[in-house]
Amino acid sequence: MKNLAFVGLGAMGAPMAKSLLRAGFGLGVFDVREANTRPLTDAGATGAGSPAEAAENAEAIVLMVVNADQTEEALFGENGAAGALAPDAAVVVMSTVGPEPIRHLDGRLSEQGLRLLDAPVSGGVARAERGDLLIMAGGPEELFGTLRPVLGAMGSTVVHCGPAAGDGQSVKLVNQLLCGVHIAAAGEALAYAEALGLDPRSVHETIRHGAAGSFMLEDRGRRMLDREFLPPRSALDIFVKDMGLVREAAAERGFATPLSDAAHELYETGSSLGFGGEDDSGILRVFEEGMGPGKPTS
Amino acid sequence: MKNLAFVGLGAMGAPMAKSLLRAGFGLGVFDVREANTRPLTDAGATGAGSPAEAAENAEAIVLMVVNADQTEEALFGENGAAGALAPDAAVVVMSTVGPEPIRHLDGRLSEQGLRLLDAPVSGGVARAERGDLLIMAGGPEELFGTLRPVLGAMGSTVVHCGPAAGDGQSVKLVNQLLCGVHIAAAGEALAYAEALGLDPRSVHETIRHGAAGSFMLEDRGRRMLDREFLPPRSALDIFVKDMGLVREAAAERGFATPLSDAAHELYETGSSLGFGGEDDSGILRVFEEGMGPGKPTS
Repeated sequence: MKNLAFVGLGAMGAPMAKSLLRAGFGLGVFDVREANTRPLTDAGATGAGSPAEAAENAEAIVLMVVNADQTEEALFGENGAAGALAPDAAVVVMSTVGPEPIRHLDGRLSEQGLRLLDAPVSGGVARAERGDLLIMAGGPEELFGTLRPVLGAMGSTVVHCGPAAGDGQSVKLVNQLLCGVHIAAAGEALAYAEALGLDPRSVHETIRHGAAGSFMLEDRGRRMLDREFLPPRSALDIFVKDMGLVREAAAERGFATPLSDAAHELYETGSSLGFGGEDDSGILRVFEEGMGPGKPTS
Repeated sequence: MKNLAFVGLGAMGAPMAKSLLRAGFGLGVFDVREANTRPLTDAGATGAGSPAEAAENAEAIVLMVVNADQTEEALFGENGAAGALAPDAAVVVMSTVGPEPIRHLDGRLSEQGLRLLDAPVSGGVARAERGDLLIMAGGPEELFGTLRPVLGAMGSTVVHCGPAAGDGQSVKLVNQLLCGVHIAAAGEALAYAEALGLDPRSVHETIRHGAAGSFMLEDRGRRMLDREFLPPRSALDIFVKDMGLVREAAAERGFATPLSDAAHELYETGSSLGFGGEDDSGILRVFEEGMGPGKPTS
């Protein structure tokens, strides 16, 4: 596999596409914001005016757009990629869209002789830049094997989660459930410490290495203490979307997710307070400003 | 400081008292269950028939009973320790009782010329046995200094959280907030994985080192996967109590804790399903059995 297309060159997509260039793949790139293609064409990619144009001659197309609607549009919209790809080409959906839209896409793509692998990622921009992402893939074993070098260029941990397209999404949702709850819990805990009259920084230092510890208490907890909400390293609105996907997939199974529900409502409140485009660690301010009957009294 | 009293020789108290014996302290011990004193007297402690008897000749008394009522009873009940201690003796409350009962105790004890340090612990039985607990102390700096060798015999990390009796409790509540939410989140996530048709063990393996990681996902997550709910290493009912204390202290400050509320209700449901005396990792079964409109369909 030598020639690829890449659609969606946002904060995560751009460094992922660069990793593919570094690994020696030929790359046609498209983004709805034309300015986003520039850093990639400077690095050796071929700019395209549409997903279809990017997909010409590509053996596989990687999609890293915002959501299921944009994925659908890039594939089947006007000048969509699906019509331009060679039969038997691979479509790799790396956005977090949930398992249901993937199953739907899988049906449509297989009708056109195209093969779908879903492969959402975890790790954030810094790890994307180092080609150090966790990639959770779902789809036939053979297709996974074919695409492994492509995924391996972007991620240091590439896991085949199951044989069905959508299995990667399901694992990603479990991941997001924990991430979303843990970030909100860090916010609740640090704002609570302040409300109890404690110094949140000392409390964080005391408890972070023990049973209360989490990746998020360490990572987002530090940004909360430093109040580093801008520029966003991961926008709060991503969790409005992802916790919504977690709850949707749960509801389809009749499975109750009370912690995810509570966390989702907190992210929604944060977004409605105007924090959606800022860092998700800004959820702290929902506890400080938006939630209680009054400001903490201490 | 050479002679101490110790009241409350349960799963945590017994190994803590043994650590004091190992460190060379003289120890008078009492427990409402007489059989609990035996392993300690075998190890060199002096058994007592009441808290008052244990407290005779003691320069400090350590209390590791279940809750605030038992603490009050051990100090001020019939044959309570407060009347037997020498003036200026120290009272060290190591149970998790919340900051409010400590402030109340502090008033009563200082009227009798006794000094109070609150010093709740985190770490569980295994770390208690190694003298490896995290101890969060609140009280005057000088008293903390005097008691440091006592605390240092039981804990490897001994933190002075603030000058007021109760400050240790407040930090402990922040710790318990995170622990309680993280355990419940691990249960929600692993049961959700199963409901989505995934293998929870593979999912755990895939995500545990990344952004979703927590001490509890590792520790309790593994017990959930192995379904090791008996014997309890930390009983679920402890979180019924502790998340209740978290919420009480929050309510006093008009501070909202939606995640703790959701977690507390899950522990209460677990207890009402009969899992209260089993390991807290059994919260998993609340998601599997107690919560959803129906069993997972996958």
